[in-house]
Amino acid sequence: MTAYDDSNIFARMMRGEIPAIKVHEDDAAMVIMDIMPESKGHCLIIPKAPSRNILDASDETLAVTIPIVAKIARAAKKAFNADGVQVIQFNEGAAGQTVYHLHFHVIPVYDGVARKKHAAGEVDQETLKSHAAAIKGALA
Amino acid sequence: MTAYDDSNIFARMMRGEIPAIKVHEDDAAMVIMDIMPESKGHCLIIPKAPSRNILDASDETLAVTIPIVAKIARAAKKAFNADGVQVIQFNEGAAGQTVYHLHFHVIPVYDGVARKKHAAGEVDQETLKSHAAAIKGALA
Repeated sequence: MTAYDDSNIFARMMRGEIPAIKVHEDDAAMVIMDIMPESKGHCLIIPKAPSRNILDASDETLAVTIPIVAKIARAAKKAFNADGVQVIQFNEGAAGQTVYHLHFHVIPVYDGVARKKHAAGEVDQETLKSHAAAIKGALA
Repeated sequence: MTAYDDSNIFARMMRGEIPAIKVHEDDAAMVIMDIMPESKGHCLIIPKAPSRNILDASDETLAVTIPIVAKIARAAKKAFNADGVQVIQFNEGAAGQTVYHLHFHVIPVYDGVARKKHAAGEVDQETLKSHAAAIKGALA
């Protein structure tokens, strides 16, 4: 498998080199809004420890990350009164991975609302910031 | 949220009341072949501890389950020389959940091979048993 490369966009966000709309950050992970969301409240949970994806991630990295995924799933569902939540994690380009730093998608689902295609278009920053604030509120 | 109900099909499989094509079993989880696979090697990782989905699962259950998800993702990719792997976990019916006991889908992806729709049709038992054996071999 290709080795981890720390020039990826999530590593750069974690180093503060490029901006991100953060929902949560702790020693283990950063949670940001997906800028091309498939639904309202689509977040990414990104562990700080470097790995390309689940195929090379350590058990420890996975074990500390997944409870944060669960917390964000609960908070996003509550914040937007979603009917369900999908948790999705892609490994390698064939599977849909576009950024090669391990991340989990949390995608709220709403009855009667069609999902947008992945990366179909950006949502404006102010809207995403208001969504991040709503999820932060539900986490508190 | 609706409470966990132990009459679901996965709880019944774990109690041995109905058959399953097992790939792996330990104290924490059972891994079985999905009988309506979306691709060759589609497995389900099912923690033994009862929870409805990620929304009510304990951090401990999630932390012991996700390394098994990773092991199965690696083994399934290796067993079938897949190009990628998707890890998918559905919460509530709106999100596609059909069995209300927490489970993670591991779905190998192959370049140039279209994915089947979820639950589009059953694959014969002998084929699934041969796939389970291939993944077991890759785990060993």
